[in-house]
Amino acid sequence: MSAAISPLAPKKYPKMPVIEGVRMATAEAGIKYRGRTDLLAMVFDPGTAVAGVFTRSKCPSAPVDFCRENLPGGKARVLVVNSGNANAFTGRKGRETTSATGKAAAKAAGCNEREVFLASTGVIGEPLDPGKFSHLLDDLVRDARPDLWKEAASAIMTTDTYPKVATATVKLGDVEVAINGIAKGAGMIAPDMATMLSFVATDAPIAAPVLQALLSGGAAKTFNAVTVDSDTSTSDTLLLFATGAASKRGAPSITDVKDPRLSSFKRALGKILKSLALQVVRDGEGARKQIEITVEGAKSARSAKKIALSIANSPLVKTAVAGEDANWGRVVMAVGKAGEPADRDRLSIWFGGNRLAHEGERDPSYSEEATSAYMTRDEIVIRVDLGIGRGKATVWTCDLTKEYVAINGDYRS
Amino acid sequence: MSAAISPLAPKKYPKMPVIEGVRMATAEAGIKYRGRTDLLAMVFDPGTAVAGVFTRSKCPSAPVDFCRENLPGGKARVLVVNSGNANAFTGRKGRETTSATGKAAAKAAGCNEREVFLASTGVIGEPLDPGKFSHLLDDLVRDARPDLWKEAASAIMTTDTYPKVATATVKLGDVEVAINGIAKGAGMIAPDMATMLSFVATDAPIAAPVLQALLSGGAAKTFNAVTVDSDTSTSDTLLLFATGAASKRGAPSITDVKDPRLSSFKRALGKILKSLALQVVRDGEGARKQIEITVEGAKSARSAKKIALSIANSPLVKTAVAGEDANWGRVVMAVGKAGEPADRDRLSIWFGGNRLAHEGERDPSYSEEATSAYMTRDEIVIRVDLGIGRGKATVWTCDLTKEYVAINGDYRS
Repeated sequence: MSAAISPLAPKKYPKMPVIEGVRMATAEAGIKYRGRTDLLAMVFDPGTAVAGVFTRSKCPSAPVDFCRENLPGGKARVLVVNSGNANAFTGRKGRETTSATGKAAAKAAGCNEREVFLASTGVIGEPLDPGKFSHLLDDLVRDARPDLWKEAASAIMTTDTYPKVATATVKLGDVEVAINGIAKGAGMIAPDMATMLSFVATDAPIAAPVLQALLSGGAAKTFNAVTVDSDTSTSDTLLLFATGAASKRGAPSITDVKDPRLSSFKRALGKILKSLALQVVRDGEGARKQIEITVEGAKSARSAKKIALSIANSPLVKTAVAGEDANWGRVVMAVGKAGEPADRDRLSIWFGGNRLAHEGERDPSYSEEATSAYMTRDEIVIRVDLGIGRGKATVWTCDLTKEYVAINGDYRS
Repeated sequence: MSAAISPLAPKKYPKMPVIEGVRMATAEAGIKYRGRTDLLAMVFDPGTAVAGVFTRSKCPSAPVDFCRENLPGGKARVLVVNSGNANAFTGRKGRETTSATGKAAAKAAGCNEREVFLASTGVIGEPLDPGKFSHLLDDLVRDARPDLWKEAASAIMTTDTYPKVATATVKLGDVEVAINGIAKGAGMIAPDMATMLSFVATDAPIAAPVLQALLSGGAAKTFNAVTVDSDTSTSDTLLLFATGAASKRGAPSITDVKDPRLSSFKRALGKILKSLALQVVRDGEGARKQIEITVEGAKSARSAKKIALSIANSPLVKTAVAGEDANWGRVVMAVGKAGEPADRDRLSIWFGGNRLAHEGERDPSYSEEATSAYMTRDEIVIRVDLGIGRGKATVWTCDLTKEYVAINGDYRS
């Protein structure tokens, strides 16, 4: 665990409004950590719709399997999240734990087991004893309150150095609806949803299939466009809940993803997902700098994203940024290793507004001084123009510092 | 540059025999470094055959382009290598430099420009002025001697902490032939030949197409099966020269790769390539431990290699080994993220002889004590059985330490 708070932590937190139909409670279950909360229950009013995006790992955790089974029902009444143990690669015992927790949560919330969602984060491969927390669920559901978003975000942290929240209010039809989100994640973060848990809720009345389309689309350019260390977790879970409570205030029920009344909501949801994903990057283990990488002029958007991720995951690029060294040669290297179409002699590279390379060689007007000054910033923007097409993509990462090694060389022990 | 020699450096160096038909010379050209050699010329007798394997980077260096153009001729008379500047991403200037160096080397060696081979290693993106060293080539060729293998290996080093050599003698027909090799590389090492230069020579009379088949096959299981940081260089070059001088002593001329007389030679060449590749891994920037990763029971050999590389390139696996932590959960994660066929519930994992996971969960008989003792070794063997097929592959890497970050956060400045 890292003691110091990331220098890229938010300077201040937004005031999180109440989302009608959502209540929360946290507890100190002592699963692994001492003296902090490690258990979250989020309770939803009847009629809440749910959508989800999960890790693409071929070795998903038991809670991911559990959520995937319940998701097609499209309904959620309670979410239980623990930190300290991922319940991943725990075999039969892992399935027994999710089953027991699902039953206990359904009983506590008075709902069907298919309306329960679970997430676990922490060490992989250690059996998770449901007896450590399932007896707490009755009290949690009973005592749940609508105003505990930051506390909820804190309870799900592992190596995170700060809780991550985001909020927006937006018009749906003529009625204001709210969207709140929380997230956790600091390492094992790579596209395809790395050790990232994120839970977003709204009072907008949006049907589950529409919710799913919005979430999948939004995740592609946010949670699936960030990487800390190229490592993908077994446990990544992004869930979006819509209680529909705003319909009482006259908000229209949305059942078609092409409904034009959705456009503001869609934009706001995208902003929340991006904010949460970037908060994860900015809390990347050992991170001192945020790096935004845009690749344009690629053969396709897919190709651009692959090259951008090759740059973002390159230890040599990340250590260069940590050392405040505008080592654009390593960017060339990372473009070259991506295996995607590229023409060395058409490549241009910018660090911020400074063009360092142009048409396959060092830019003759490149200023070492200006670039060195730029590299001292805590947000670095790298732009690459391949000059061969119109494909474009942006991804985000952080630098690679000695602290990353320290945190991860001594995590389990 | 790292000052300290890797703790995994060879305890002693082999005596390198003379390879008849090969002479060498080194010089201090002052291209970037001071007080050390940075230029190597290797001169070959007429009739020397050559084969090569190069980086798969889409942004190869100018010397790689130059070698690729000359390779189809199959003949070599002189090799010129410099360290300190990679002549990569140097555009038109880069091509002018290889052209000028090629001309100067051909003149010095009295050969055709098509018989010249070049390699450069060091910083990317800085123009390399051929005037810094082309005037030295006449003297180098004239003064070249057959007994400078270790000096040659030293001249081509960049962040390497020790020179890398290997040698073998083997029977071809009834005649003993020798194979010598040198290599450099410490970072930006990933399969597909990362910043790795390696030059191997033999006096065996082997035709160029046969040499090429031997080299391509040998590289796949050696140089293309090692990774330090997943980063692939623009400059990787592995060349194999056969002077044929042993034919004077009665060695048979080999013109068919299926010639049964080749078998011992092929095995010995494989051993040399493996020795050199492992010396590169053991000099991985900041490395304290060598890690061998074998994946078996995969759907295919190709799939096994992809999963093995996913484990080998995982920063979380590499930092765990650095911290002497048998964190097999991260191995599960790396299997899962590879995207290859895998069944979580059939997976078994060993660290050395200790089986930590079996059939999808922690091995009940796993001994924390025995495994912890094992992790203190400086050579760690990780074995994964996927249990779904017969595909198998082995790759090698090193651990990821704070020193890697220190070396690479401060390389260019």
